[in-house]
Amino acid sequence: MTYKATKVVIITEKIIFDGVAEIIEEAGGTGYTVVAAGGKGSRGVRPTNRASVVDAFRNVKVEVIVSSHEIAEQITDRVAARYFDDYSGITYLEDVEILRPHKFHH
Amino acid sequence: MTYKATKVVIITEKIIFDGVAEIIEEAGGTGYTVVAAGGKGSRGVRPTNRASVVDAFRNVKVEVIVSSHEIAEQITDRVAARYFDDYSGITYLEDVEILRPHKFHH
Amino acid sequence: MTYKATKVVIITEKIIFDGVAEIIEEAGGTGYTVVAAGGKGSRGVRPTNRASVVDAFRNVKVEVIVSSHEIAEQITDRVAARYFDDYSGITYLEDVEILRPHKFHH
Repeated sequence: MTYKATKVVIITEKIIFDGVAEIIEEAGGTGYTVVAAGGKGSRGVRPTNRASVVDAFRNVKVEVIVSSHEIAEQITDRVAARYFDDYSGITYLEDVEILRPHKFHH
Repeated sequence: MTYKATKVVIITEKIIFDGVAEIIEEAGGTGYTVVAAGGKGSRGVRPTNRASVVDAFRNVKVEVIVSSHEIAEQITDRVAARYFDDYSGITYLEDVEILRPHKFHH
Repeated sequence: MTYKATKVVIITEKIIFDGVAEIIEEAGGTGYTVVAAGGKGSRGVRPTNRASVVDAFRNVKVEVIVSSHEIAEQITDRVAARYFDDYSGITYLEDVEILRPHKFHH
């Protein structure tokens, strides 16, 4: 038996991770996963060579699973509004099925 | 031409990775991907500060693509039953489209 | 307000990352995310023990979000055609909802 939930993915600069985590917690997210990431943004951030992209993991990919699409949009909206004028970042949502809804509920 | 498949994602403590891999292989998964992950669980695991969450990657995010939803649920059920009373973890499923189904079939 | 988009995921050997990035850029992808990954392939790549899988991150997981399913398939087709006879790899697509479509458009 599985339940529908929404995964919020935020890929952004590592230095604003604290603020992103704060927004997640304020919105009711009780857990999140963080992975070190590199990459090339759409704003013309161009490292000298591609190999350096892989090695220089200055970004984080943060994932949080929430029970409602509304909370998910709240998180993405707030992260974008607070940070994406000044920092590189992208955020998107995915539908997931989870086994145990109580793991991320209050 | 793409084919529907199911991605199983298991985020849990690194120390039980061997057992998780065993369950995947027993269920017929012929390949998986592992990424080092940090994060904050829903059980009140609270590192002293958020920055340490990013750097202390004591978790793993394991992903496996299987051809049937039934096998996917089997893997999540077994991982949860065997480990999630004693270890932190979350597991969820996502629909994916793959290019080459023979890559993960027996 | 969110918009539908397609996420292309390519998990393959780190040494061909430059070529994969080239294919993404040629197809019009303006940004991508890279994460270091380990794993076990479906071709019988068997490390001596499972723990080494976690520590030896010789693979990369590359993700790119594109506005059309057609571009997504173009990327996966080209990566598979150019590399997957000679290198391990898997590629798949996922539906996502993004907040800001202009972030990955030309």
